[in-house]
Amino acid sequence: MIIAAPRLPRPSEAALHRVRQTLAARIGPSRILDGDGVSAFGHDESEVAGVLPDFVVLAESEAHVAATLEIAQAEGVPVTPRAGGTGRTGGAIPVGGGVVVATAGLARIKEIDRANMVAVVEPGVVTRAFHDAVEAEGLFYPPDPNSLHNCMLGGNVANNAGGPRALKYGVTGDYVLGLRAVFMGGRTMFVGRRTPKGVTGYDLTSLLVGSEGTLGVLTELTLRLRPKPPVVRTLLGLFDSVHACGAAVTALFHAGHVPRALELMDEGSLEAVRNQGAAVDPRARALLLLELDGHERAVEEAVDHVGNLLHGAAGSLEVLAAQDASQRDRLWDARRALSPATKKLARFKLSEDVVVPRSRIADLLREVDAISEATGVRTLTYGHAGDGNLHVNFLWNDPSERERVDSAILALMRSTVSLGGTLSGEHGIGVTKAAYLPLEHTPELVALQEDLKRTFDPKGLLNPGKIFPSRGHGSC
Amino acid sequence: MIIAAPRLPRPSEAALHRVRQTLAARIGPSRILDGDGVSAFGHDESEVAGVLPDFVVLAESEAHVAATLEIAQAEGVPVTPRAGGTGRTGGAIPVGGGVVVATAGLARIKEIDRANMVAVVEPGVVTRAFHDAVEAEGLFYPPDPNSLHNCMLGGNVANNAGGPRALKYGVTGDYVLGLRAVFMGGRTMFVGRRTPKGVTGYDLTSLLVGSEGTLGVLTELTLRLRPKPPVVRTLLGLFDSVHACGAAVTALFHAGHVPRALELMDEGSLEAVRNQGAAVDPRARALLLLELDGHERAVEEAVDHVGNLLHGAAGSLEVLAAQDASQRDRLWDARRALSPATKKLARFKLSEDVVVPRSRIADLLREVDAISEATGVRTLTYGHAGDGNLHVNFLWNDPSERERVDSAILALMRSTVSLGGTLSGEHGIGVTKAAYLPLEHTPELVALQEDLKRTFDPKGLLNPGKIFPSRGHGSC
Repeated sequence: MIIAAPRLPRPSEAALHRVRQTLAARIGPSRILDGDGVSAFGHDESEVAGVLPDFVVLAESEAHVAATLEIAQAEGVPVTPRAGGTGRTGGAIPVGGGVVVATAGLARIKEIDRANMVAVVEPGVVTRAFHDAVEAEGLFYPPDPNSLHNCMLGGNVANNAGGPRALKYGVTGDYVLGLRAVFMGGRTMFVGRRTPKGVTGYDLTSLLVGSEGTLGVLTELTLRLRPKPPVVRTLLGLFDSVHACGAAVTALFHAGHVPRALELMDEGSLEAVRNQGAAVDPRARALLLLELDGHERAVEEAVDHVGNLLHGAAGSLEVLAAQDASQRDRLWDARRALSPATKKLARFKLSEDVVVPRSRIADLLREVDAISEATGVRTLTYGHAGDGNLHVNFLWNDPSERERVDSAILALMRSTVSLGGTLSGEHGIGVTKAAYLPLEHTPELVALQEDLKRTFDPKGLLNPGKIFPSRGHGSC
Repeated sequence: MIIAAPRLPRPSEAALHRVRQTLAARIGPSRILDGDGVSAFGHDESEVAGVLPDFVVLAESEAHVAATLEIAQAEGVPVTPRAGGTGRTGGAIPVGGGVVVATAGLARIKEIDRANMVAVVEPGVVTRAFHDAVEAEGLFYPPDPNSLHNCMLGGNVANNAGGPRALKYGVTGDYVLGLRAVFMGGRTMFVGRRTPKGVTGYDLTSLLVGSEGTLGVLTELTLRLRPKPPVVRTLLGLFDSVHACGAAVTALFHAGHVPRALELMDEGSLEAVRNQGAAVDPRARALLLLELDGHERAVEEAVDHVGNLLHGAAGSLEVLAAQDASQRDRLWDARRALSPATKKLARFKLSEDVVVPRSRIADLLREVDAISEATGVRTLTYGHAGDGNLHVNFLWNDPSERERVDSAILALMRSTVSLGGTLSGEHGIGVTKAAYLPLEHTPELVALQEDLKRTFDPKGLLNPGKIFPSRGHGSC
């Protein structure tokens, strides 16, 4: 683990003991896990050093969550919510110790309402299982974070997760109509609605979406669905440089196309894919993976048009179309395997998740080259090019390089902001990006968010140490 | 005017005098309007009795707005923001007196960025003028509230305005990437971003969208645009009952169609349209106005399919297709004229804006019939059937009927909530619906929203008397 967790004051043993005893009496001792059992709850899929919780509540109902937040609040003990634990920024790590409240046991799909295209689910439902359930009803839930086989809807909502299909269909937050949440102290409420439109009161739903478990713990989600697109076609465009890819993205949008996904891989990414055994034309030094969906005739027309455009103006070396579902799955498996595959290229890896306006992708790619050259740190870039959301990976082998890596990341963040972009497209801020927040947010904006945090959680006990730069840490 | 404004304590003459003097010195006396000049700033397009402000600030820059909120805060004087003044719930009425800060003078389209499909505008830009400007660039800004010829983007964002095209494209809030706002005391900041994706910090943009000018005054909007759909086709389906219309809406969605607009008119609405001189087949007692857009072949295919479906299973009396843009404009002019036209049918009218899940439209229409029968109050219903968002109008001539009207509206609100709906789809809560808020929101949810309001505006000076039920008023 290569990023230190912030050091926060730990709760007292006496307070922890009282919370444990009172909770055991309220929700039953079998729902409390401690000792060796907690070891799986101290880390996530980020590079942040793990911190073990003092104990874990295996919640199976909203009442269990509410009891936890009521009793912990009374004793001043921190609580860290956790769904699938697949986050990339340390958001689920209990950096202040105390209690982890695990909502994986709240895993029911309560309702799929076909007529209104609405589902009501619990936070522990695995995203891919939900896809399957709604598609069996002829419906479609677009958000598809890379970890969809393991991540859970509660974590997706808490982090406003994205994925390739966000390009056409928007991110998780665009599908959340309402939710039930428990706040510190145990207050429980439904916010939002289950209708497509509604402007009754403040939009608390959107405030809770993406708040990374720092404002409330989600216990039920009311999600909007869509009709399942009848036809999907997948294309692969090979290029001799990543810069040609960037130009092709611009050309596609100028021509009025909105693919449902438009993924970019640079030379290093292709190397990682080839290392996994994928046979990619050796001339290719970058590729675009592109998906179009809709009604049959419109999609066929778009596939022809996009194919011609890539071959022609965009200068693609070769354009391949997936001939069937299994070819399509193989292309996506290669894309989804990229994040683990890049880990094998070097001893250490840090992955960023910046976004720039689409027209600035080529500029960002040039900045990444310049940063890599100036610092001597190897980079590898892939991601959701259509959204301007790129995963820039920094790779190194010798621990002594770490200082240069940090300055490379800082330079990337500065470039991103100066290109009109934002620090994170879909991973959130968590622990790993908190120090960079002041690059994008003014002190007044950070202070306003901290005021809002205090409105929900005056003692700062819910998921402490996340999003906001630690006091005394200084800004970068 | 048939709804009383809430009575709030008025600011002292001395405080008003000091605010006026200090402001005149800071922003220039010519930007302050008082005396007879304020008469146009005391009402909106609702049925709420007007209240005159003590004076009006004609802001032409963000600095003017900030100076107003700084000086008013220091003296404890209320401030009510106003853009186009076309709201339907009294939101722009300065019910506590004090200052109206008018942002109509902030009316620049600062930027239309074609490559990234983003625009940056000021709040005083008229919605229709913005449509024209972006369409001239081959782009598209979908939100189309009925008042689009007069309303302004600042008011649209403050109220999260909808319109017919919300069915396919979503409401105003779905197009707001970021904004600049001034808070009480004069703090000014940008929140949000200009990229399509971004999860850096809390979603304050969505919190401010639809907050009805109670949290901050908007001074700049960063809006997302879309490619302009190349082809639009408009259909009219005539039915012998409004219930047949409701069933047709369900059938259309079951068949997988997502029209860009799907508007319903009941018998009373048709009468209002016929009174305006429109020749509508005399057999028709209800109609659906339906619009499809996209690429040519796909749209033609959908028009054929929808036409057959309306004729066949849905039992339409007749289906008409607009043959050209001028026929199309005439159909929409008739739709847009409905709200003023219904005013001529009786001396008094109150219009509600409820939403139910789409599958419950038929149930809601039956409830409206039952309420009308039980109370003897005439009703007339039209609206955005595809969204389940219906404008239910109550019409009467004799002031003595008023009590029955109030009980009919209360019954409608109760029915809406019990059908899983929400009090307002696009007009907001403002003054007119504040008393009904407790039917939908629990006391805890109202209290949480009031806590958030205090975080932005601890003295309760910004647009007071809106959204939340007045103290001592009791709930219904």
